[in-house]
Amino acid sequence: MSMMHRTFKAAVIAPAMGLVMFTLAHAQMADPLPSWNAGDTKQAILDFVATATDDNDPKFVPLSARIVVFDNDGTLWTEHPMYTQLAFALDRLKALAPDHPEWKTTEPFKSALDGNMKTLAQSGEKGIAQLIMATHAGMSTEAFETIVADWFKTAKHPRFDRPYTELAYQPMLELLDYMRANDFKTYIVSGGGIEFMRVITEEVYGIPSEQVVGSAIKTKFEIVDGKPQLTRLPELAFDDDKGGKPVGIISAIGKQPVAAFGNSDGDREMLEWTAAGTAATLMMLVHHDDATREYAYGPGGGLPDTHFGTFSQSLLDEANADDWTVISMKNDWAEIFPPATR
Amino acid sequence: MSMMHRTFKAAVIAPAMGLVMFTLAHAQMADPLPSWNAGDTKQAILDFVATATDDNDPKFVPLSARIVVFDNDGTLWTEHPMYTQLAFALDRLKALAPDHPEWKTTEPFKSALDGNMKTLAQSGEKGIAQLIMATHAGMSTEAFETIVADWFKTAKHPRFDRPYTELAYQPMLELLDYMRANDFKTYIVSGGGIEFMRVITEEVYGIPSEQVVGSAIKTKFEIVDGKPQLTRLPELAFDDDKGGKPVGIISAIGKQPVAAFGNSDGDREMLEWTAAGTAATLMMLVHHDDATREYAYGPGGGLPDTHFGTFSQSLLDEANADDWTVISMKNDWAEIFPPATR
Repeated sequence: MSMMHRTFKAAVIAPAMGLVMFTLAHAQMADPLPSWNAGDTKQAILDFVATATDDNDPKFVPLSARIVVFDNDGTLWTEHPMYTQLAFALDRLKALAPDHPEWKTTEPFKSALDGNMKTLAQSGEKGIAQLIMATHAGMSTEAFETIVADWFKTAKHPRFDRPYTELAYQPMLELLDYMRANDFKTYIVSGGGIEFMRVITEEVYGIPSEQVVGSAIKTKFEIVDGKPQLTRLPELAFDDDKGGKPVGIISAIGKQPVAAFGNSDGDREMLEWTAAGTAATLMMLVHHDDATREYAYGPGGGLPDTHFGTFSQSLLDEANADDWTVISMKNDWAEIFPPATR
Repeated sequence: MSMMHRTFKAAVIAPAMGLVMFTLAHAQMADPLPSWNAGDTKQAILDFVATATDDNDPKFVPLSARIVVFDNDGTLWTEHPMYTQLAFALDRLKALAPDHPEWKTTEPFKSALDGNMKTLAQSGEKGIAQLIMATHAGMSTEAFETIVADWFKTAKHPRFDRPYTELAYQPMLELLDYMRANDFKTYIVSGGGIEFMRVITEEVYGIPSEQVVGSAIKTKFEIVDGKPQLTRLPELAFDDDKGGKPVGIISAIGKQPVAAFGNSDGDREMLEWTAAGTAATLMMLVHHDDATREYAYGPGGGLPDTHFGTFSQSLLDEANADDWTVISMKNDWAEIFPPATR
């Protein structure tokens, strides 16, 4: 063997071999879901991805059908003591209150401004809707985006004292990355307001605005001072909850998902529809059973009457009967939130 | 120089050099838009892409903002003598007529079944909507997809005697490919029915269902015989035309497009909104001025009163005043349709 050949081999072949070996070793050793404790729940995810991506498996999912949907509140980030969007609405209400003296004597505004959450809760969905319309409409989509972005820069969660954008669940962030690494297209499908979420979904979840499905108020195109503008109107256009979730998915995506993740009764129909698929499917529900590190509510939890993320016994029964996987935050998750970054 | 070195050089370096030279030559020589005649129109497209993708240009468009929207009927494929979806509705009406004896004496069904297009046109948007509801609703989304797919397999255009799926404009197919090769995400934004279009957009345009925005009827989630089903209801949910187009775009995509292509008054607001962008923008209108190879209508055309793809003088005036580009099918397009494949 000539000197030149050895040089060639050293320069080209050996590093190439090394790369191959490193890649194999890396694939075998690296855990794509390090914040998930070993067990049936984690294994269900790994098994689903293995089956869905194996083109020799009869349950193989072709690339164009790799649609995965995630509820947001309570599934991807914390929803207690109240939905993040409601916290925004209450702060916004206070900011606007000086221009609305009538709110001091009119419900649900009075309770909201007084911080009387019990009376506010009693005003029900209608009351919440009134708060949303008063704080989310009457401006352009651009102006609304700016208001929301500014709020996220300073608002903090009352218990964890961290920006809401840091309260996404670390195991779910890993799951989103893992799905995308296997060519699944990840969507948020939430009862929350679509334009509210879109301000932070790219930064927090790596999900672009076009992969967010949510509830929406009506929007009107108009020319204002010679400039085109989309103006937000105080009227509901679409309620992306319960049976609305499959409808929102078919409207925005046009395909049945192969995996669906939720945490409450509002996600039931989305999981039922996903479960009806004929290729590999995965249906999972996050169960909030960790009062120490986050909150405990739902079946067996400490807050059975919560208005935020109701997980009824009948949903649990359906999950058990249909082999959906219930994620125990307490047992399945080694970490809840990412390390603090600011 | 040893034999081994020469072999190494011949085997590795020379082909690599050749590849580099071939790639450069290819980039300089290959025309991405061969069916577009040289001229200002073609140059406007090339200039837009050059500016939008040059990260040293102040009008550079970052990857996440490369959203390009195309109207469908009359912009991407032929819309005369009637919208393809209307041809489908009329065929479907005939197939369903035996179960609806009342249609023989009720308008607009009577005119539609008799082929009396003039009376049908006189029934206006309300009449057309009645035909659509009678033929597009009352079944599951899956069943509707099958009906549409089956229709496309056999239906042929009355003048060109070719399947409708072969009547996409060859220059626009090249434009779609060229945009995607430069990392633009291509969307259809059409007044046509979203579920009707989605059946063929991947095959014809390379556009997946999740990048189609269109008009929609209401859909309801229900459990039928123990199986989840999305049932199509005979009620309009969204009219994706005129001011509805920007609204449909913000709803589905959440971003202002940087390029918009249309051909009629229904596309005006979409182009106005796109034109208001601050980065590179491109607004184009297809003008049907080629009665020999396709049809002539719109300003100066032979069918000023057409109900399919009205291009008014006021739209032309606005295009000229605002430096939008009007594509002359006659002068700018070397080919109209792709070569026949079946």
